[in-house]
Amino acid sequence: MSLNTFGHLFRVTTWGESHGPALGATVDGCPPGIAVDEVFLQQWLDKRRPGQNKNTTQRQEPDAVKILSGVFDGQTTGTPIQLMIENTDQRSRDYGEIAQTFRPGHADITYHQKYGLRDYRGGGRSSARETAARVAAGGVARAALNALIPGIAVKGYMTRMGEVTIDRDRFDWDAIDGNDFWIPDAAAAPEWEAYLQRLRKNKNSVGAEIEVVARGLPAGLGAPVYGKLDTDLAAAMMSINAVKGVELGEGMAAARLTGTENADEIFMGEHGPEYSSNHAGGILGGISTGQDVVVRFAVKPTSSILTPRRSIRMDGTATEVVTKGRHDPCVGIRAVPVAEAMMACVVLDHFLLHRGQVGEGPRGTIG
Amino acid sequence: MSLNTFGHLFRVTTWGESHGPALGATVDGCPPGIAVDEVFLQQWLDKRRPGQNKNTTQRQEPDAVKILSGVFDGQTTGTPIQLMIENTDQRSRDYGEIAQTFRPGHADITYHQKYGLRDYRGGGRSSARETAARVAAGGVARAALNALIPGIAVKGYMTRMGEVTIDRDRFDWDAIDGNDFWIPDAAAAPEWEAYLQRLRKNKNSVGAEIEVVARGLPAGLGAPVYGKLDTDLAAAMMSINAVKGVELGEGMAAARLTGTENADEIFMGEHGPEYSSNHAGGILGGISTGQDVVVRFAVKPTSSILTPRRSIRMDGTATEVVTKGRHDPCVGIRAVPVAEAMMACVVLDHFLLHRGQVGEGPRGTIG
Amino acid sequence: MSLNTFGHLFRVTTWGESHGPALGATVDGCPPGIAVDEVFLQQWLDKRRPGQNKNTTQRQEPDAVKILSGVFDGQTTGTPIQLMIENTDQRSRDYGEIAQTFRPGHADITYHQKYGLRDYRGGGRSSARETAARVAAGGVARAALNALIPGIAVKGYMTRMGEVTIDRDRFDWDAIDGNDFWIPDAAAAPEWEAYLQRLRKNKNSVGAEIEVVARGLPAGLGAPVYGKLDTDLAAAMMSINAVKGVELGEGMAAARLTGTENADEIFMGEHGPEYSSNHAGGILGGISTGQDVVVRFAVKPTSSILTPRRSIRMDGTATEVVTKGRHDPCVGIRAVPVAEAMMACVVLDHFLLHRGQVGEGPRGTIG
Amino acid sequence: MSLNTFGHLFRVTTWGESHGPALGATVDGCPPGIAVDEVFLQQWLDKRRPGQNKNTTQRQEPDAVKILSGVFDGQTTGTPIQLMIENTDQRSRDYGEIAQTFRPGHADITYHQKYGLRDYRGGGRSSARETAARVAAGGVARAALNALIPGIAVKGYMTRMGEVTIDRDRFDWDAIDGNDFWIPDAAAAPEWEAYLQRLRKNKNSVGAEIEVVARGLPAGLGAPVYGKLDTDLAAAMMSINAVKGVELGEGMAAARLTGTENADEIFMGEHGPEYSSNHAGGILGGISTGQDVVVRFAVKPTSSILTPRRSIRMDGTATEVVTKGRHDPCVGIRAVPVAEAMMACVVLDHFLLHRGQVGEGPRGTIG
Repeated sequence: MSLNTFGHLFRVTTWGESHGPALGATVDGCPPGIAVDEVFLQQWLDKRRPGQNKNTTQRQEPDAVKILSGVFDGQTTGTPIQLMIENTDQRSRDYGEIAQTFRPGHADITYHQKYGLRDYRGGGRSSARETAARVAAGGVARAALNALIPGIAVKGYMTRMGEVTIDRDRFDWDAIDGNDFWIPDAAAAPEWEAYLQRLRKNKNSVGAEIEVVARGLPAGLGAPVYGKLDTDLAAAMMSINAVKGVELGEGMAAARLTGTENADEIFMGEHGPEYSSNHAGGILGGISTGQDVVVRFAVKPTSSILTPRRSIRMDGTATEVVTKGRHDPCVGIRAVPVAEAMMACVVLDHFLLHRGQVGEGPRGTIG
Repeated sequence: MSLNTFGHLFRVTTWGESHGPALGATVDGCPPGIAVDEVFLQQWLDKRRPGQNKNTTQRQEPDAVKILSGVFDGQTTGTPIQLMIENTDQRSRDYGEIAQTFRPGHADITYHQKYGLRDYRGGGRSSARETAARVAAGGVARAALNALIPGIAVKGYMTRMGEVTIDRDRFDWDAIDGNDFWIPDAAAAPEWEAYLQRLRKNKNSVGAEIEVVARGLPAGLGAPVYGKLDTDLAAAMMSINAVKGVELGEGMAAARLTGTENADEIFMGEHGPEYSSNHAGGILGGISTGQDVVVRFAVKPTSSILTPRRSIRMDGTATEVVTKGRHDPCVGIRAVPVAEAMMACVVLDHFLLHRGQVGEGPRGTIG
Repeated sequence: MSLNTFGHLFRVTTWGESHGPALGATVDGCPPGIAVDEVFLQQWLDKRRPGQNKNTTQRQEPDAVKILSGVFDGQTTGTPIQLMIENTDQRSRDYGEIAQTFRPGHADITYHQKYGLRDYRGGGRSSARETAARVAAGGVARAALNALIPGIAVKGYMTRMGEVTIDRDRFDWDAIDGNDFWIPDAAAAPEWEAYLQRLRKNKNSVGAEIEVVARGLPAGLGAPVYGKLDTDLAAAMMSINAVKGVELGEGMAAARLTGTENADEIFMGEHGPEYSSNHAGGILGGISTGQDVVVRFAVKPTSSILTPRRSIRMDGTATEVVTKGRHDPCVGIRAVPVAEAMMACVVLDHFLLHRGQVGEGPRGTIG
Repeated sequence: MSLNTFGHLFRVTTWGESHGPALGATVDGCPPGIAVDEVFLQQWLDKRRPGQNKNTTQRQEPDAVKILSGVFDGQTTGTPIQLMIENTDQRSRDYGEIAQTFRPGHADITYHQKYGLRDYRGGGRSSARETAARVAAGGVARAALNALIPGIAVKGYMTRMGEVTIDRDRFDWDAIDGNDFWIPDAAAAPEWEAYLQRLRKNKNSVGAEIEVVARGLPAGLGAPVYGKLDTDLAAAMMSINAVKGVELGEGMAAARLTGTENADEIFMGEHGPEYSSNHAGGILGGISTGQDVVVRFAVKPTSSILTPRRSIRMDGTATEVVTKGRHDPCVGIRAVPVAEAMMACVVLDHFLLHRGQVGEGPRGTIG
């Protein structure tokens, strides 16, 4: 019910503003006895951290995570885990203009209309900086998943950035971590980079499409009819800043297909049921089938651009906004580790929910 | 936390199986003093009801809703409202084969794998029949919205069915309720019908894309960062049977746009802020802008078709499934009133949440 | 968050008014594969049912429970279980006076002040009749507990009714079900009955103290710091109509003790830790110790009495209220099966919560 | 659903262990525009802080609270408020013995049995030190209440400590803050002190009874049937460390009364309904009457005493525990500000819930 919280049993509440003293995540419901420390968490934060290459913002934020509670002698204790990231790169500056002006495409105007006041420094609570806290929490979820579902993998990658897309025939899972765009095709990275730098020089930005896959999930996770695994994944992705669409498996394209085209036929494989295809994205009736769970989402272009856009001030007068700050020309790139974190949290949550209601013992077998 | 519940303050829990004695919705948190009766609710159920024309299933279900609690002297009392729909069209038949077989594209196999047993009659809990309960609850939400936000309208319509799409230039809001497909273009209906009948004759089915709009919402509804209005809408739509993708405003296409293209510039209009466009779909930072809130989603083709599909039985043996029952060739048509109901519930919920946290008094004004 | 719901994973939402068409409970989160039917549930409803002897109200309500969903072939399916009890003994009468008057000690006045309207027939939603739905839900919880924790027993009994109390030295667990007062001392029942009949003849009513025990619980159920087992039990008991106090173990008397008196010393027994006493009531730090969990609560005297009490009408004019209806002189008697039901639900819920977060495997062992 | 969270709309999640780097509270759902700062919060922490006089523990903890988020320019923004209290008095010491031993009356054994591991330093998560976070959150609730319900007062005081009790005839509301025991009778304080020092010298401790009153609440707060105001208050108080019983109004003594004795008759006063008495404790049917809301609870004697108590070690061997640390001989004293904080949170939460569901406008009037 906390509006800044997600999850049922594994519950993550993020807190903090872009330019406040710190931000973080309160993680409740983690299983006890999971090995986790700041070094393990930091690797995921580093993956999201800006300033690492010329394709992301040049802000330098160490984003060092501290564990303040819930971990003892290197293991989770089952009590709330507080993860804090101090804000160190808070440039002192004059916020006079931005304090009075609503940047187009940002939440400045709606926060003002809703609450009557807002922390205008760097977008305050609506800044994508909040996602650092999610990545930290996702690290805890990964640690628990690794312990509870051996062999599970949660990985995200870009599939489109404006006019450039990946070539599915050249898909290379192992290439994803080796380039600045998290794309599954190392050879394509230079083209992506050239495209993005051209946009940047044109004082523009661009949208992106990201796919996240959970591989190695057992069948049976998820639940009817509002706690469906896909329902929670859709909410998780849509909650990320700038996301405008979420797809599962075939996604929006399912509207174009016929029943014969869309059918995932079922076979008996060596280790259980197998499917001829995965239009369903690994979920039927809200419950995992044991196939890859495949989620895709779109991130809108960064709203903060150097090209002037018309807007208004709090007093209603007209103005033009040119965002001179250090901004990612494609926020979608940094959405990849965030989406992975969200998926890890959702999958762990459903694992725990399933264990709670149904237990660990043998369930419905086939064959 | 109930997995069959949605909403924060306006909470809807649906219950019931396709072929059990009844199904319904337990609605908690409705404001008191709202005029509502069975006649008002029935109109929405009738809109969803099958058997009304040749483009939907020929099952005859009266779907008569009964109010069992929470309404007194024609007004809500603020206590839980129980809405029950008795199942009358339960043909007695032999379920022998279906009890042992997993229909491809259905939740038969995942329910079995999760729970170890399932009510196999007509899909049981996973049947789209469950959405009748949502429509009933949505009727209550509509009654409350009408009282609390005068002038609000929540309307859905189809935008695509397989290869046929609407022509945005011919969009006619008033035409939506006048044809079998809920399309905003009366003249196009015959083409849609011909297309669908051709598919039906070919023993096939087809997917659909539906758009739902909430018009007349005040600015300020929704909340960071996980109780966002778009997050809850995405979850609401994804929870509907067979939905594979959800979009807000520009949706997945946002991945193709540049920042200059995607910007919704802000002007000062006569009654407050206005926007040059609505790529955002009426929501910024999870909070409504006062523009139309526009959600789009895709429904996969009906999995139950007369063309044989390969599958397996509980014992692992191979089989072929031909679904001979009375099924909609395009379940997307009947998803329209369901999506309207979900949107009405979500919008009301966020109105109440906002009133709870922020109050009714004046908030941030502009100009 | 539903205000008419309790439980975390095993969630019970009750609905319905005293004189509406029906009332019931929506039970979500029950484990699948639990054998349960209407006959099993009915035995608990019969225990609570009025009109069975001269010490309770003479209303005749069959209180027949129907299972509308969630059970198939005699087993729970893991989906929501709808339990409905139709109201059959709704005497048609003139509610003119009661519709305008606030009965002292009842919720008439606060419902009116809160909601602006109320179902005044028989107390509407605030009637103790609502507890029939809890007892039905408690029956489901008992069925699940019996399957999941073999040997567990949940039993309640009266310990005080006005000036009469039980003699702890004559405590007989097996006598509880054999008398009209659910007291653990068959020989004392005539004295209790004489006392109560004297009060009834004097047009008066009386309060009661009830103790409920869960025996056979494993250690480890419950969780810090707000999901404590005792926190949920306190809320569960306080939510029952007319309850004014809740105690765990030593209860309010703990305020009078010293640390040496109150200490439950720990020994190593044959099967694990044992305690020299149970001042704690079987819970330390919100988590079960494996001892009996002992909860006690007080029920105020029935407010509906034949002796006139002064009150006001909706228009503010003074009046006197004499309640001529059929009322229990001691509602505490019928609170016994209700409290058992609540305890069964809470214990099951914490069993599932524990299994979800911690799992079924070996936890901290001793010795 | 977070087990370390309480509240519906105003949600408080506490985190942290006694000897970790910090502890705190994540407060979500606070209304925006409430003036609050660290100085305002600190006054309540100082009230709870140990080491202030010889009747409480001599530990010196500054308990300085820091606001890390959710407050901007001295006002709440409507986003999560993170309150952190760093642990400064963490004496480095050898935990060898305590790490292996279960202290009687403490949660050492149940945490071990539940989680398989525990932070044994100073009780870890189960330490009463956690209540500092609640007091900080309660400060935020007080600030909001002061703004939303002018004239409201929430005050707690001791009514019993072992064998000494307050004299209701000498009750002085204004004396409460002027003595070490928060008793409403300044002249009695020396007797209380002498009694407590005698116990301390005898290496013993003692229980306490505390009463908390909310004065100035409007009628209509609370809701049937599980979100009752008294249900939430009972849970709130029972969740405080060492609490064994909770009473509302007449409390457990209601079991001894007859209906004529217990009746709170209703009159029409100058400003609305008035009552002849307040056996109900200001709540009918779970909803506030407008009278004082009166809650009472009992705290068990401090389990950590200098008198040896028998116990066992993790390996099952017998031992004796003598707690040499700096401990309060009566933890009940410091429970007073904690209970006030909990009550402030619950009352604010129900104010917001009511505003959400029912609104701010006129509801049921009388006269």
